[in-house]
Amino acid sequence: MTTNDTAQVREVGLRDGLQMVRTILTPAQKLAWCARMVAAGCTEIEVTSFVPPQVVPQFADAGEVARGALAIPGLHAAALVPNLKGAQRAFEAGLPKVHYVLSASNAHNLKNVRRTTAESAEDFARIVAARDESGRHVVLGAGVATAFGCTIAGEVDEGTVLALVETLLEAGAEEITIADTVGYAHPGQVRALMRKVRALAGEVPLACHFHDTRGLGLANVIAALDAGVRCFDASLGGLGGCPFAPNATGNINTEDTVFLLESEGLHTGIDLDALREMRETLAAWLPGEPFTGAIARAGLPRTFAPRPRAALS
Amino acid sequence: MTTNDTAQVREVGLRDGLQMVRTILTPAQKLAWCARMVAAGCTEIEVTSFVPPQVVPQFADAGEVARGALAIPGLHAAALVPNLKGAQRAFEAGLPKVHYVLSASNAHNLKNVRRTTAESAEDFARIVAARDESGRHVVLGAGVATAFGCTIAGEVDEGTVLALVETLLEAGAEEITIADTVGYAHPGQVRALMRKVRALAGEVPLACHFHDTRGLGLANVIAALDAGVRCFDASLGGLGGCPFAPNATGNINTEDTVFLLESEGLHTGIDLDALREMRETLAAWLPGEPFTGAIARAGLPRTFAPRPRAALS
Repeated sequence: MTTNDTAQVREVGLRDGLQMVRTILTPAQKLAWCARMVAAGCTEIEVTSFVPPQVVPQFADAGEVARGALAIPGLHAAALVPNLKGAQRAFEAGLPKVHYVLSASNAHNLKNVRRTTAESAEDFARIVAARDESGRHVVLGAGVATAFGCTIAGEVDEGTVLALVETLLEAGAEEITIADTVGYAHPGQVRALMRKVRALAGEVPLACHFHDTRGLGLANVIAALDAGVRCFDASLGGLGGCPFAPNATGNINTEDTVFLLESEGLHTGIDLDALREMRETLAAWLPGEPFTGAIARAGLPRTFAPRPRAALS
Repeated sequence: MTTNDTAQVREVGLRDGLQMVRTILTPAQKLAWCARMVAAGCTEIEVTSFVPPQVVPQFADAGEVARGALAIPGLHAAALVPNLKGAQRAFEAGLPKVHYVLSASNAHNLKNVRRTTAESAEDFARIVAARDESGRHVVLGAGVATAFGCTIAGEVDEGTVLALVETLLEAGAEEITIADTVGYAHPGQVRALMRKVRALAGEVPLACHFHDTRGLGLANVIAALDAGVRCFDASLGGLGGCPFAPNATGNINTEDTVFLLESEGLHTGIDLDALREMRETLAAWLPGEPFTGAIARAGLPRTFAPRPRAALS
């Protein structure tokens, strides 16, 4: 890797992280979190999820948070949407980027959004059409969940994932995220699949979304880097472990991911000290929630030399 | 990797793991641990350390444990020695393999064994001579500690490590272990250094010894695999975190390392269920000690298919 290489860490703590948290943060807290991430150099943030409030009360304020996020200078705000209705709410809020997600595992998709994977793929085409009709400039990313295996269905065929990626690209996906939703992926599998996805996607940007459930989250980042991936979802403090199911460890930890990428000579533009301070604030806001992270526990090596931060554009 | 690839996981919990533990295990407990590791398929074990008992009381029974280990069928017992005197005690106990270790960081070596790295390298030559004079068949391995950085000295020059490896090989080392004693290594560094060590060592077997202090232990295993390393030290339950310094996370976890290697298609011959049972026994023997491990917490993926165990030879 050259010293000019960069990598992107996208904060998904406000969405994936808060999904199962007991304390409901206020919109003001969520927006303060966003602003401090941007100040730390982490400008790509999934600020909320447009799911029905009765399903996840934590996101009842999705519209308010999205509109507030748009007022934070330097923040590239996105939201997750599970269906056309959610996408329309995200468009109305004025968000410049929307992430749609479906599961490669049909069983998981049925459980998650009560429709088949094929139906969800058709829904994405309708979302693209709705965006086009609206005349709005919204970037539409598409994610394939349970791409490395499923707790319900077990093995997920590589061919199924690749066919879905093709379908989503044909429908107009402007970015592809491949997600290890349940923490089943291992490095060899990640390297092999991401090389094939890379070949399919051509110039369309790729991202990976890993969970650290079985300790392989950062090893999987290394494998994805080998396959040319340079964008990773992560959650501050590893937030997203379910307090009612201690086995469901959450997303890879933002601080540790930044530490790994910077150690590897990849410029993230993110300041680890600022992340650590925000992590402490967040821990105070969310008493009793499990936080993870090796850097928070052990500190940085004396030998660690992050790339100098670029000026925020 | 082909399906015939194998990898070795060496248990160092009885040595590195017990070093800072408050409860002193009895020789009978240590030998029961060894026997159950062998029954689980983990036959390479560092059973003790021949350090002065006043320095580490846990190893006052080194001779007794070494002799007991020799009576366990299928166990390839080794011991760590910090100097000639320790090596002579290990030879007298009849061990077929002895690991000598010195630090690439002179400051660390001085603190650890009160002599310079150069003096320790000369000591290794004396150990080889003593082995030769004894007429015993003892395999002598040599390890380079703090090879990826040092908490006292900071950066450790790659050239220093490579020169030490050459010195140790010339002196007669029959195996080389490269150790990230303080948990500073990152994957790019591991891949680069291990490729160079590999080129120097030729047919001499190589091993890596990683600590998971900053969450990169298993990512470093992946990097070492890329460089052709197929032997890794690990500690059952990640034992080796210091109870008085919660930041000093210990060795990579044996169960998680086996899980990673088997997931990558590398045959270890080790049964994870049996490891998990022994881990529980060990936790009961060592109340209050910190144990780590993602597999112990989250269980194996439904999709995990270990290689069938080979019959024990």
